[in-house]
Amino acid sequence: MEIIKDINTMREVSRNLKGRKTIGFVPTMGCLHEGHKSLISRARKDNEIVIVSIFVNPTQFAPGEDYENYPRNIERDSKICKEEGVDYVFNPNPEDMYPNGFSTYMIPGENMTNIMCGISRPTHFRGVCTVLTKLFNIIAPDRAYFGEKDIQQLAIVKRMVKDMNFDIDIKGCPIVRENDGLAKSSRNRYLNYEEREAATILKKSIDKARDIISSGEKDTKKIANIIVETIKKEDLAKIDYIEILDFDTFERIELIENDVIIALAVYIGKTRLIDNFILLNF
Amino acid sequence: MEIIKDINTMREVSRNLKGRKTIGFVPTMGCLHEGHKSLISRARKDNEIVIVSIFVNPTQFAPGEDYENYPRNIERDSKICKEEGVDYVFNPNPEDMYPNGFSTYMIPGENMTNIMCGISRPTHFRGVCTVLTKLFNIIAPDRAYFGEKDIQQLAIVKRMVKDMNFDIDIKGCPIVRENDGLAKSSRNRYLNYEEREAATILKKSIDKARDIISSGEKDTKKIANIIVETIKKEDLAKIDYIEILDFDTFERIELIENDVIIALAVYIGKTRLIDNFILLNF
Repeated sequence: MEIIKDINTMREVSRNLKGRKTIGFVPTMGCLHEGHKSLISRARKDNEIVIVSIFVNPTQFAPGEDYENYPRNIERDSKICKEEGVDYVFNPNPEDMYPNGFSTYMIPGENMTNIMCGISRPTHFRGVCTVLTKLFNIIAPDRAYFGEKDIQQLAIVKRMVKDMNFDIDIKGCPIVRENDGLAKSSRNRYLNYEEREAATILKKSIDKARDIISSGEKDTKKIANIIVETIKKEDLAKIDYIEILDFDTFERIELIENDVIIALAVYIGKTRLIDNFILLNF
Repeated sequence: MEIIKDINTMREVSRNLKGRKTIGFVPTMGCLHEGHKSLISRARKDNEIVIVSIFVNPTQFAPGEDYENYPRNIERDSKICKEEGVDYVFNPNPEDMYPNGFSTYMIPGENMTNIMCGISRPTHFRGVCTVLTKLFNIIAPDRAYFGEKDIQQLAIVKRMVKDMNFDIDIKGCPIVRENDGLAKSSRNRYLNYEEREAATILKKSIDKARDIISSGEKDTKKIANIIVETIKKEDLAKIDYIEILDFDTFERIELIENDVIIALAVYIGKTRLIDNFILLNF
């Protein structure tokens, strides 16, 4: 496995592989966990070459968010990548990715960003789309892998790739969870012992919603209420949003009919966690 | 020469060529004139394969601009391309390029768009960058050719390619002019006889500016005044803007020192014409 920091070196490597071998790409901000491993494993199965980027992308953090403190440990992450059979780790410097005079952005449509995480993080997805455009252009992968945990990100990236005619197949992969149900996330390490216990409330509330849907409930207001009531029982938890949306259009719905996504963001102490549940072919 | 309308067919052709032959790309809105021919000729010299796109791009026109009436003549344009040795003409349908649900845009920095043509056409360059991103992703050229007549467009495209790490070399080509100095433009055909005569005032005013600069004038206010006074003598002409800028930063300057661009936009009747003059290594 090779670790590449230089943009032009990474481009040369990809250019030489292009057309000869299939390239699977897993973009990450490092701090790799089982969720990332599942993406790498899937990429490993589907492709001849696997490239993982490790880059804490400044443009997807707003001032006051955790850019400076976001956990970075390239040695540990590289070791994991090597163990998982990654061929190349791309780990560029922020000043090379965003040199002086940088001013162009890839901006997703408001219909997909003025909802869910986009409300409390209005420039987040602009940063995500911009860095992905850069990484896609440098690496030119055949396939790129994203977790369904960041379901809004996955939907926006799929839209961007379609709208911009990127020659890349975007693959969504299922959420990986801890034994008690908490979705794996790099931000889980911000939680102290009490908060870590409290964080299970996200999955618990989703399970309650699943239960009443299984029992025949279709009214999304009632389903959302069950989630709210469940979370309110946990003192350390504060709801950021609960959304019940049509999976294809990302529009809010009143009745559960077709493919549905139930998504929530909850502060546990100061740490904001997200989770979701996709209900296909209802 | 082959004319391709289908996006996937165009992509397949490019994908099969990629890595085997160099691809030169000339994006156009059709209505080809000597200016375009000079771009095609340069692309022909530099590359093994030349692809010309002919697509009147709706997203770079604002409501009330001339999108509907913009001249279209694919037969004539194809004939010119064939004569000029083009290998492929890409002529997609607007509804394939912008299907229902399209919502992502590539947006250049305000520092490059809140000046010159960007003031009267605030969404124009967003449309240009968006369609070029799409065309670049479909065609994946090695080099792309742009006229220096649309100097702000050239600067913005170069910036976008650098910012987004497109693996494409952007080549600027000199302005091609009529015998009386008028810069070639598809919009010149909107001019009636009197307006066509009047339109020479753009180049005449630029020449006056060049003359006083040659005589030692460095004060950009005085230089701009000469241009204003020259144009004001022409009753059919109405100035949209005159800008004297640093060529690299696109910032307004007070004294002519380094590389400079003098750019103007002038309405002749209802038709808005642009011209410019680049003064390198002053």
